[in-house]
Amino acid sequence: MSLVGHNLPPASYGRLLDIIRSAGPLSRVEIAQRAELTQASVSIIVRTLLNDGLIREAGKAQSTGGKRRILLEVVPNARYAVGIHLSDDSIVFVVTNMVGGMIGRCRRPGPGNMHPSLVTGRIVDEIDQLLKSLGIRRDALVGIGIVAAGPLDYAGGIIVGSPAMRHWDTFPLRDELSSRTGLPVAVDNDATAAAIGEFWGGRVDAPLSFACLYMGIGIGSGIVMNGVPFRGSASNAGEIGHVSLDVFGESCYCGNRGCLEMYAGPAAVIKQARQMGSAPQDIKVTDTTKAFDHVARLAVNSDQVALKCIRQSADYIADGAITLANMTDLDLIVLGGSGFAIAGVIYIEAIRPALAERSFARRAHATQVRLSSNPRDAAALGASALVLQQALAPRP
Amino acid sequence: MSLVGHNLPPASYGRLLDIIRSAGPLSRVEIAQRAELTQASVSIIVRTLLNDGLIREAGKAQSTGGKRRILLEVVPNARYAVGIHLSDDSIVFVVTNMVGGMIGRCRRPGPGNMHPSLVTGRIVDEIDQLLKSLGIRRDALVGIGIVAAGPLDYAGGIIVGSPAMRHWDTFPLRDELSSRTGLPVAVDNDATAAAIGEFWGGRVDAPLSFACLYMGIGIGSGIVMNGVPFRGSASNAGEIGHVSLDVFGESCYCGNRGCLEMYAGPAAVIKQARQMGSAPQDIKVTDTTKAFDHVARLAVNSDQVALKCIRQSADYIADGAITLANMTDLDLIVLGGSGFAIAGVIYIEAIRPALAERSFARRAHATQVRLSSNPRDAAALGASALVLQQALAPRP
Repeated sequence: MSLVGHNLPPASYGRLLDIIRSAGPLSRVEIAQRAELTQASVSIIVRTLLNDGLIREAGKAQSTGGKRRILLEVVPNARYAVGIHLSDDSIVFVVTNMVGGMIGRCRRPGPGNMHPSLVTGRIVDEIDQLLKSLGIRRDALVGIGIVAAGPLDYAGGIIVGSPAMRHWDTFPLRDELSSRTGLPVAVDNDATAAAIGEFWGGRVDAPLSFACLYMGIGIGSGIVMNGVPFRGSASNAGEIGHVSLDVFGESCYCGNRGCLEMYAGPAAVIKQARQMGSAPQDIKVTDTTKAFDHVARLAVNSDQVALKCIRQSADYIADGAITLANMTDLDLIVLGGSGFAIAGVIYIEAIRPALAERSFARRAHATQVRLSSNPRDAAALGASALVLQQALAPRP
Repeated sequence: MSLVGHNLPPASYGRLLDIIRSAGPLSRVEIAQRAELTQASVSIIVRTLLNDGLIREAGKAQSTGGKRRILLEVVPNARYAVGIHLSDDSIVFVVTNMVGGMIGRCRRPGPGNMHPSLVTGRIVDEIDQLLKSLGIRRDALVGIGIVAAGPLDYAGGIIVGSPAMRHWDTFPLRDELSSRTGLPVAVDNDATAAAIGEFWGGRVDAPLSFACLYMGIGIGSGIVMNGVPFRGSASNAGEIGHVSLDVFGESCYCGNRGCLEMYAGPAAVIKQARQMGSAPQDIKVTDTTKAFDHVARLAVNSDQVALKCIRQSADYIADGAITLANMTDLDLIVLGGSGFAIAGVIYIEAIRPALAERSFARRAHATQVRLSSNPRDAAALGASALVLQQALAPRP
């Protein structure tokens, strides 16, 4: 557990809240059935949740012969969480409520070479300003989630970091941010967070098991099995961006060779588009997200050069999706991250047939592909969701 | 759960048995501490386990001041399970006891083109003969585990099968074998079984989370997280043998391109060794395991051609191990399967430095590599272990 500074509620409390959140409004009887608890236990926990202001009564169910049952639902704005996506080119802040709804958002420049301690100061200031603009007090927050590309030291709450953030590898980010805000802080992988965000944001029909293929500046994936993220030893699981597409290929900064990210990632697409003369010359090189957005926008508007570049990226991503399917055997892949925000459809068009024709288990079951409900902010929303999940409905 | 035909004991019963099995002999007080249960609950369950003959008293602990406590241990031969590894070139049968110890073993020819129903008949006869030779009655069995390379329909207990076993894809293997023997039957993936076998066979210091990189005739992997196998949707997770090493490579039978198995698998090694004149010409082509054993034996005896072939396979397996590490982030990879039985050391020599130099999370944590305690029979032992685990100590 990567939260510090707060006592967590007992698991059954969280489980009930999770049931009401995802499937509500529900009566006490329905809650007891879904939770496989006695009605007496449910009544006690429901009373606590009502007292804590986390749920409320929401009218009565239609009569089924006897007394009409009182329905219960989550109070969406009872609590909030802050989600932060720390990336090479930007820091995205979101504030979400109990049900994962986005209340506020801002995007700020990336950390650059600034000392992590100064960046943390900037982050605290940004949180305060954002909360102020929304009229939300700090004590209505359950915590702060901050996510980044790995590698991570999950137990230590430290970003070991990609080359651009290597100087973060001795900085106790989680503990520093927690002590400067007095709030629980979770540090996690951006792609894993994006997956948890999909799960938390979903309703009762949301799948319990799926993978999120994530493309921001880099490429990764998050794996959720039965509602629980598969983190591995230090929350670096699912690093599909650094799986070789070609072991005979060139060296990657990560140490491996011919990595998916080198062929399919935004930097590769931008480079190719520039070489082919469809260059977003007007965009600062350091803002990879904006430069890639430009190419993606050209592609969806049928610029032939941009379309060719994006389609090639999509074909490589499809190869990566097959690896992801073959390694996880999950039947749903959700595409999240800013890389899919504009040209997501082009990617889906490449991935679906590839999985249908080439995935190992295709004769045992199909693998569905769909776009995240909010691909651009999937990691920041997920950062917020994982704090909400850990604080309000902790998994075993 | 892939067991049919028997009621499962309650989870706490299994949990206690698991604690005594892996860490025993233990006193009731120690059991209660490890299980986080009250001594009263432990006493009730221990009485049931004693009555069922699954555990027994094993002397007294050294005095710690007060009364000397009675120690309890598992009765190794109280129950047995049969594990079967169904492969293209062979069917391996093992009988194991409560603690995963191998009591009996035999290897028979593969199923060939024979109808699955006839093969099932052969399997039932072999089980009967094996049990008879061991003096074990069928009612001392908790069940039968039968494992094969995927793809699998796990819920249906059906081998959807590789091309050589494609005609199995409508045969209800689990239900047929269960109805013909009157025993619970589990059908699962060979590599996942091998991983569970490592876990079940281990003692208290066995890791709870690790991946098993498996090489039999084909290549796969099994993933265990906190003692629970990661199966994905239909127990086809971890199909590392059908992850592309080179997406620009040739087509594989599985539908994908440039798969690890095509470069590193026993068939590729045998073919290369033959082409280079170090050919196991005397061995029937259909018995891939024996032909590969021959090359591996030559390699460990310093035959230069064989050594070159095995080392090349090991380098590709090392590439696969990096993908496995990057996708799972686990800190231990165990090598299991007949492919590692003879030349395992050559493989380890290639995998260790590759992970140390090229795995994504190497600066966050190391990834250990070790050889299975019984690589040749890892899948069959695992088949047996997963039945024991499901019957005696079911996981959530």
